[in-house]
Amino acid sequence: MSSDNTFLQMFSTLSESGELRLELMEKPVPVPEDNQVLVRIEATPINPSDQGVMFGWSDVGAGRSSGDGADRTFTAPVSEQGMRAMKARVGQPLAVGNEGAGTVVATGNSELARSLAGKVVAVMGGSMYAQYRCVDASACLPLLDGHTARDGASCFVNPLTALSMIETMNMEGHTALIHTAAASNLGQMLVRICQADGVQLVNIVRKQEQADLLLKMGAKYVINSGSENFMAELTDAIEATGATLAFDATGGGMLASNILTCMEAAAARIPGAYSIYGSVKHKQVYLYGNLDTSATVLQRAYGMAWGVGGWLLPNFLAKAGPEVSARLRARVANELKTTFASHYTNEISLSEALDADTVRQYYAKHTGEKYLICPQK
Amino acid sequence: MSSDNTFLQMFSTLSESGELRLELMEKPVPVPEDNQVLVRIEATPINPSDQGVMFGWSDVGAGRSSGDGADRTFTAPVSEQGMRAMKARVGQPLAVGNEGAGTVVATGNSELARSLAGKVVAVMGGSMYAQYRCVDASACLPLLDGHTARDGASCFVNPLTALSMIETMNMEGHTALIHTAAASNLGQMLVRICQADGVQLVNIVRKQEQADLLLKMGAKYVINSGSENFMAELTDAIEATGATLAFDATGGGMLASNILTCMEAAAARIPGAYSIYGSVKHKQVYLYGNLDTSATVLQRAYGMAWGVGGWLLPNFLAKAGPEVSARLRARVANELKTTFASHYTNEISLSEALDADTVRQYYAKHTGEKYLICPQK
Repeated sequence: MSSDNTFLQMFSTLSESGELRLELMEKPVPVPEDNQVLVRIEATPINPSDQGVMFGWSDVGAGRSSGDGADRTFTAPVSEQGMRAMKARVGQPLAVGNEGAGTVVATGNSELARSLAGKVVAVMGGSMYAQYRCVDASACLPLLDGHTARDGASCFVNPLTALSMIETMNMEGHTALIHTAAASNLGQMLVRICQADGVQLVNIVRKQEQADLLLKMGAKYVINSGSENFMAELTDAIEATGATLAFDATGGGMLASNILTCMEAAAARIPGAYSIYGSVKHKQVYLYGNLDTSATVLQRAYGMAWGVGGWLLPNFLAKAGPEVSARLRARVANELKTTFASHYTNEISLSEALDADTVRQYYAKHTGEKYLICPQK
Repeated sequence: MSSDNTFLQMFSTLSESGELRLELMEKPVPVPEDNQVLVRIEATPINPSDQGVMFGWSDVGAGRSSGDGADRTFTAPVSEQGMRAMKARVGQPLAVGNEGAGTVVATGNSELARSLAGKVVAVMGGSMYAQYRCVDASACLPLLDGHTARDGASCFVNPLTALSMIETMNMEGHTALIHTAAASNLGQMLVRICQADGVQLVNIVRKQEQADLLLKMGAKYVINSGSENFMAELTDAIEATGATLAFDATGGGMLASNILTCMEAAAARIPGAYSIYGSVKHKQVYLYGNLDTSATVLQRAYGMAWGVGGWLLPNFLAKAGPEVSARLRARVANELKTTFASHYTNEISLSEALDADTVRQYYAKHTGEKYLICPQK
């Protein structure tokens, strides 16, 4: 435990007057209850899903920092539309940071809690952009010997999301998968999982260098959405794989609709399968990210057996149940340095994460770039 | 059986050159096989879902008729975009007419087939815009004594769709329902079913006279989408009923998105339920119609637990299974003159259904207007 009895934790608050404020607050270090452990957070990644809570609908480009060290704050203006969308959070300091890893420095008296003493563990529990976090012992995933907090910082969001895509595919009766923004950290994991599990995967990327990266990894189907023949190439890949499920990280625009159009075109190639109400096999696109915040536009020229919807890891895991969760977590721990290895382009302190220039860098969400916060820095 | 051995049947064909053609073709009267019956079709309604097959993406306003009687044809031009959407049907004469009713005039030798001899039956089997239709005996729903073919012509599409909306609600864990275009024939049935079954229903209409009609029927929640306070009124009704499922007949535009926005706003009124990822309860809008053929625009300011998708009666019944189908069909037969009574504003012959002025009248799909084809006329 730290020598003094307080620690720093990041909060995001939206004021009534239309200003979003990110700051570090000083909190008393808690004493773990029976089944709890106190984790000294040593590494916690900045995921797109974290940024949703940190910045919401604020105008990050117009944001600015003031103060230094523990006193630094970042503030950004919020439009009227943004205020409407975020009405429910006005005045509430929201703790941020979905996942992270660190060392158990104090425990409660339960057997499970005591068994974790001194261990390096990964945690997904929110409030992780902090120097300490007190959590239920059962929420901890102990890393294998020799694995560091940095290795395990991104144990949950990306690995469990990628694995849960395959689980969703199986649960909902699909047999192959389409993924957009496929060169992302998550997308690369998904390529490795699909290779290991023999699942056919169609990767959609936006740039040639992203396509090259995935092809070099051995990905079989890589389609560039910037290609003139995008729709025809995607239809061919869908016909070859039989994919009727897609996970789209962009959310906005025409991409989901275009994927459904190509799924329907591929189905229509099956001789005699034509029906005026479209193909009977259900075609689904899940929007699991929001890289494009514009409206989703659906042209609906793909019959009646289709769906588009939001997809969120905690909602999926709640539906799938604890046995599935445990199975997926065990796989992540075992393959942490291979299938689920994450790469960070920058390591920053809690205070540096509030610097306006740094914010704008990680907020841009460039493919392949990933920031890690090291709260002990 | 008719005195000669041929009959007239309507077909819709799209030519390579971009013309959609509706015509009557002469077909030989079939002899029923063992488990089949031959039905003399006496009444068959024109539903919006039939018009999808009849006219597709053609420009009905620019359509014209030529010829008379059995030789009358209706042709309409098709845009390039329309041709792309209908590519799979080029050159195929499509039989039209989803449902109808008439008298069994010949049967096969099976016990079930023979038991239907002389009976008035309703049939949902496609190819119903015809003077005769040979179908499997098990596809027939015998009407109660004293009920005519006119009474039973619309036994399936609207009644089963309305009942299946309630089934969907129960199967997918919702407890109340929203319906758009709620003053339609189908909408009025749904009001009566929900009253009988004690299901809370929020009706969305576009005009005050439609609202008045439903209120007079005893509907409790009727919202006019033309109202200045539409969103606030809908949110209040959702809060009062707990509706997290909607069936939208319009399909295009912002209505589905607006309904989801109001569902989320209603959920956010529950104290302490705020989460940055939105309410956890799944919110669903099914598009079962296409009154507005413009794109569906989703603003996505309603968290992650939402879905939008197509909904088609045959797909639903296939999923629900034969026991559910049989239960719903029995209810329709028993309540044919009450809950499921249909009203027709016009009765026309097969040939009149191809008259360009008549086509434009029923194609306009005015609320409350419904055409019945009487093929023996």
